[in-house]
Amino acid sequence: MTDMGKGSDKGRILLSVTDWDPEVWRAEFAKAAPDRPIVLAPDHPGDETIRYALVWKQKPGSLANLPNLKAIFSLGAGVDHIFHDPHIPDVPIVRIVSDDLSMRMSEYVVWQVLDHHRLGPRYRRQQQARIWHEDRRQPAANEVTVGILGLGVLGRDAAEKLLALGFRVTGWSRRPHQMEGVETFHGKEGLGDFLAGADIIVCLLPLTSETKGVLSMSMFARMKQEGPLGAPVLINAGRGGLQNEADILAALDRGLLSAVTLDVFEKEPLPADSPLWTHPKVTVTPHAAASSAPGALVPLIVKQIEAYERGEPLTNLVDRNAQY
Amino acid sequence: MTDMGKGSDKGRILLSVTDWDPEVWRAEFAKAAPDRPIVLAPDHPGDETIRYALVWKQKPGSLANLPNLKAIFSLGAGVDHIFHDPHIPDVPIVRIVSDDLSMRMSEYVVWQVLDHHRLGPRYRRQQQARIWHEDRRQPAANEVTVGILGLGVLGRDAAEKLLALGFRVTGWSRRPHQMEGVETFHGKEGLGDFLAGADIIVCLLPLTSETKGVLSMSMFARMKQEGPLGAPVLINAGRGGLQNEADILAALDRGLLSAVTLDVFEKEPLPADSPLWTHPKVTVTPHAAASSAPGALVPLIVKQIEAYERGEPLTNLVDRNAQY
Repeated sequence: MTDMGKGSDKGRILLSVTDWDPEVWRAEFAKAAPDRPIVLAPDHPGDETIRYALVWKQKPGSLANLPNLKAIFSLGAGVDHIFHDPHIPDVPIVRIVSDDLSMRMSEYVVWQVLDHHRLGPRYRRQQQARIWHEDRRQPAANEVTVGILGLGVLGRDAAEKLLALGFRVTGWSRRPHQMEGVETFHGKEGLGDFLAGADIIVCLLPLTSETKGVLSMSMFARMKQEGPLGAPVLINAGRGGLQNEADILAALDRGLLSAVTLDVFEKEPLPADSPLWTHPKVTVTPHAAASSAPGALVPLIVKQIEAYERGEPLTNLVDRNAQY
Repeated sequence: MTDMGKGSDKGRILLSVTDWDPEVWRAEFAKAAPDRPIVLAPDHPGDETIRYALVWKQKPGSLANLPNLKAIFSLGAGVDHIFHDPHIPDVPIVRIVSDDLSMRMSEYVVWQVLDHHRLGPRYRRQQQARIWHEDRRQPAANEVTVGILGLGVLGRDAAEKLLALGFRVTGWSRRPHQMEGVETFHGKEGLGDFLAGADIIVCLLPLTSETKGVLSMSMFARMKQEGPLGAPVLINAGRGGLQNEADILAALDRGLLSAVTLDVFEKEPLPADSPLWTHPKVTVTPHAAASSAPGALVPLIVKQIEAYERGEPLTNLVDRNAQY
């Protein structure tokens, strides 16, 4: 591997991550773009050799004062982890859109939808008690409506895969979206009808100041009261900040929700004393729905950088006002 | 409802079932074909008013000596339940082929494939112990090969749905089958390569004298030793008679299989003292993978009868020699 150092005319890439091991990402970049040196910090404030930044929960201020920075690339699908930093320079922010990530998220969504639809928790309880009893309430997929909150790349991919299995699928998004085979709703005025019609609600919303805590009692109270599986099921694979965990527990206990699957939490790792761990109607996974596989994502970022340097526009840009 | 009695020129239908409640089926027939009287037994040996028989594990001999019987309809997808009876008259036997049944079976297969692929059992154990740990071995679907034993209507439908989720899919059948996107193997000579290549094996074979007990140590010993998920996973949603349960337990304990899901058993209901109930690597469901919904199946049978009476050939016929 050649270290072209500060002298490279391609500039250097700043890798600014917390919580994650940067070396995995550095190794993938060394493979995919050996001519682009990666650094974990600028040499000094005002470092003019840094041209791009790759970030995951960057340390606030770590992107400031880089006069030649051209773009920021998020290493995850969500970008809320970027905006906690008040010192983000005014350059384009690019989100990850990758087939690998979409496929993994859709696997998770389909898995958990089927686990509730096919009475997984019930059959596991029966197995523990050695009870042989087929639950004859089992509805067909086409009697069950899965409502997807958030119709971005991930939401649309999950919708397609649920349609292929025969489910009825509806979707809600802030702005209008059309999708074949999916009944779509949008905006505040569309939310009520969306909530009233869904048997299983899958949340894939971005976390913004508008969506913070939306999975709360005021939403649960507007959901369907009784579907083919009883009260609605909630699956949140978006962000923990979208949910009010005290309200989720209250809704389960009041029967407004019959079960929930949570991959994300207000606080991660989920504290050992959280009642969510042991609640019989809660499935917990450790933020494992759709992990970025560096080997699948890095080549896409390198491709974007190369296209940008040929004068092509950056794609999958984040709207700073909408925060997603 | 008009009971046209013995005088109906459409003849009567014999409903010969054990283990199931006949009244549910009778009620659906009364709705779908009110002009065709249903009886639970012939009036006397040689009853010439019986024209069709609908069967599920019929009492041996119950179809004998019905001089005007034209066809036998199985009320389930498998037909092995018919052949335990040495007195089956020599008339066409029709199996159930229905979108509803295929959809339910594919749901079950996709659900269980995903549950193993996405480390469901591990994350459930972690939840019980309040352990937050993302397993970084998670492979992408396109790194995992799901091999389907049996490429009939159900096997092909499941294959399609697994392909849509990104899995590699292979298939084995007794006779050659082609299917787009699926690598197919057939016959005794194709079984070795099929077994050596699959990470998750889904059994949807018919139960015949040839397939009885095939899920045994001699098969497990020919499987892949180490895939992306460890040793292979076995899912049997076909018939319990296909499996040797002592061998399955031995293969789990010797590490030839990493986990199994069984919906069917040598003896059903699964006896309370079976070690399968409590084995940590076994998922038990109570023969619930794809239950016939009488309301979805009966209209298909009535349609077949009507077509037959217009002179059209019966479809989905069982090959008596092959026993499926």
